[in-house]
Amino acid sequence: MDATSRAAGSTALLTDRYELTMLQAALRSGAAHRRSVFEVFTRRLPNGRRYGVTAGTGRVLDAVENFRFTTPQLDWLADQGVVDEETLRFLADYRFTGDIHGYPEGEAYFPGSPLLTVEGSFAEAVILETVILSILNFDSAVAAAASRMTSAAGGRPCIEMGARRAHESAAVAAARAAYVAGFTATSDLEAGFTHGIPTTGTAAHAFTLLHDTERDAFTAQIDSMGRGTTLLVDTYDLKEAVRTAVEVAGPELGAVRIDSGDLTLLAHRVRRQLDDLGARKTRIIVTSDLDEYAIAALAAAPVDGYGVGTSLVTGSGHPTCAMVYKLVARESVPGGPLVPVAKRSAGAKSSVGGRKWAARRPDADGVAEAEVIGTGPVPEELAGHLLQVPLVLNGESVGREPLAAARERHLRSLAALPLSATQLSKGEPVLATERTA
Amino acid sequence: MDATSRAAGSTALLTDRYELTMLQAALRSGAAHRRSVFEVFTRRLPNGRRYGVTAGTGRVLDAVENFRFTTPQLDWLADQGVVDEETLRFLADYRFTGDIHGYPEGEAYFPGSPLLTVEGSFAEAVILETVILSILNFDSAVAAAASRMTSAAGGRPCIEMGARRAHESAAVAAARAAYVAGFTATSDLEAGFTHGIPTTGTAAHAFTLLHDTERDAFTAQIDSMGRGTTLLVDTYDLKEAVRTAVEVAGPELGAVRIDSGDLTLLAHRVRRQLDDLGARKTRIIVTSDLDEYAIAALAAAPVDGYGVGTSLVTGSGHPTCAMVYKLVARESVPGGPLVPVAKRSAGAKSSVGGRKWAARRPDADGVAEAEVIGTGPVPEELAGHLLQVPLVLNGESVGREPLAAARERHLRSLAALPLSATQLSKGEPVLATERTA
Repeated sequence: MDATSRAAGSTALLTDRYELTMLQAALRSGAAHRRSVFEVFTRRLPNGRRYGVTAGTGRVLDAVENFRFTTPQLDWLADQGVVDEETLRFLADYRFTGDIHGYPEGEAYFPGSPLLTVEGSFAEAVILETVILSILNFDSAVAAAASRMTSAAGGRPCIEMGARRAHESAAVAAARAAYVAGFTATSDLEAGFTHGIPTTGTAAHAFTLLHDTERDAFTAQIDSMGRGTTLLVDTYDLKEAVRTAVEVAGPELGAVRIDSGDLTLLAHRVRRQLDDLGARKTRIIVTSDLDEYAIAALAAAPVDGYGVGTSLVTGSGHPTCAMVYKLVARESVPGGPLVPVAKRSAGAKSSVGGRKWAARRPDADGVAEAEVIGTGPVPEELAGHLLQVPLVLNGESVGREPLAAARERHLRSLAALPLSATQLSKGEPVLATERTA
Repeated sequence: MDATSRAAGSTALLTDRYELTMLQAALRSGAAHRRSVFEVFTRRLPNGRRYGVTAGTGRVLDAVENFRFTTPQLDWLADQGVVDEETLRFLADYRFTGDIHGYPEGEAYFPGSPLLTVEGSFAEAVILETVILSILNFDSAVAAAASRMTSAAGGRPCIEMGARRAHESAAVAAARAAYVAGFTATSDLEAGFTHGIPTTGTAAHAFTLLHDTERDAFTAQIDSMGRGTTLLVDTYDLKEAVRTAVEVAGPELGAVRIDSGDLTLLAHRVRRQLDDLGARKTRIIVTSDLDEYAIAALAAAPVDGYGVGTSLVTGSGHPTCAMVYKLVARESVPGGPLVPVAKRSAGAKSSVGGRKWAARRPDADGVAEAEVIGTGPVPEELAGHLLQVPLVLNGESVGREPLAAARERHLRSLAALPLSATQLSKGEPVLATERTA
């Protein structure tokens, strides 16, 4: 299975009504056919974060491909009077025929980075705003948190377990984004089915409580899943549970999971007890309300893996990314040059017009030193460091790749940033954004 | 359209792997057939919140009904070795045949409230954990934020506009939850299509930037949508835009929207300007990063409606609800009595065993004074104040209702709480939870 297997179901109504009403008015005024450039970017990273992580790109490609209006959808739009007949005819035939370039999945980004550039007629590009932003804002928020967690975990595996704390479909996207940012597995079966992510999980407290004794429960689990399974040992008394676990499973017991209490203290105790019982290879998995700070605090504890739930799927305090989708250039006359445009009212929401390129400039040692963004010709020395890649050309997806490629890219991207990128403490973005004409 | 029209697509893999492995081990041990009671509750409200809001109940009914394993799903589970043959046979025939009682949608809740009680065999009930929690945790988080916002807005309409800041499917659920908690409309077309929620929206800055002048844009919009439309007036110069808007539309202009700047100040200025231009009935809609506090701060400003995005769909700082799904009772012998069970290791995660009822006890004036939760017989004086209703009986949904019913219930529920419930400042839950045997 790969990311392409999910493609199903129309995404066309995952759209804010104003996009269709703008379309209608622009079809009427004639401006709908002006060639236009929309850009996805964010004005800022969440407070204190050092970098952002591009995620959801593969899902955007599916969403654009599936952006087709079905008859029931068109009937509903007509029935509700959302748009007029002319617009309905346009929508009935709609498919995106333009180009999309963007940061490839897993790549780090910074304030102002042109994460996605959508080019086509105003009509065909304006109506993709919501679905593109929904995907990138959510997936990138989770990936950013996941990246900090996997960095904090060093080489130890992180397992995504947040499905119960997120919308049921968002949970699947969260597992995918976490995998891009270095998580090794997910508890969510749909994420395994849809995206080919490894799934894990053995038992909850309910399984122990179901049986008359903890020993009965452990015996049942070992009988069913073998000695390599993970036993949950904190339903009643931890010490007694560990003893029972090794008695039932023998020293070949795969792992124990601790889901409450002072994890540092308990991990040391359980490690000693397991070692004393001869279960030296039995691993210890911890799973209680972890975030990147808790993971970092456990670095010196004898822990073999982290299960992370709530804080991962909610972006560890930042559940969305503030990415926006802005018109930055458009024709004035058919076939004419693209004219940069930008909102310019007072206040913080102004933006920079023009179609942009972006490059990550390395210093002499190959470490990134700036995110350079420009609208003019690309300076020769930056030509080899451009960040955007083609994703859709003439309406055809050209940017599909296995999730493994995004995982590897994320590691490379992070490794090329200054070392301070992976500090968990609050700070400025680790690269400054330089703007050049 | 109503909530039932969405029912489509299997929800069976929106499930954590450990549920299926527990099922397998319990089928092997024989304990899978023990009659069991699972309870959804939360140990705490988000810090400082006065009440929670039950939302997503209708979606849970759909999810349970659609919890059927398809052949591709079963093939994948077999292929991945998630569970054994016996378990696959069980899953192939699975449908929930038990009972679900719960707080009806829109009802307020408090720490420990038994929001949902699922009764059936362990096998049939254990595997519903993830999808039920995903729905209730997300939808209730949004509804809680929405409820504070609609209270802060007084009688002024609140419009949900957060789709671009949330996962694309979560956005639809968010619009639904916000509607339950008093929002009047959504920007999200899928939420209109699927749930019958009124949709609104006219234009973004892109529409103004697309045209050569703001006047061209306003003219195009009025030509297409009529004078009753809402013109966005902060792309360039606000004062000039308002003048142009009334020149183009006349005093019948429906509304103007302000999306940046000091909204209190600007609302007063724009109101004066509109009045001076004779556009006394033209409304003012504001939409810039609003949350319940910003809405409250605008109470004295001449604002006619609020569009709320990011903070709504992210639960205004609390994007999930910490609800859990716990086994609280089960048989020891077939047909025997239900035995209360509870995790009892040290630490904050212990829970209370036994199947619970809940009642909201009113004082002499009819104002709620306590959330009473018990496991024994219901005291006579509380019999008329029980909170749970039947949702599923013998596997059949009996709790479906139009969203309008949940909206009305939410208003009634809030009106019966002490007045301090709607204070925005941080505080304790407005009702204490009393436990009785």
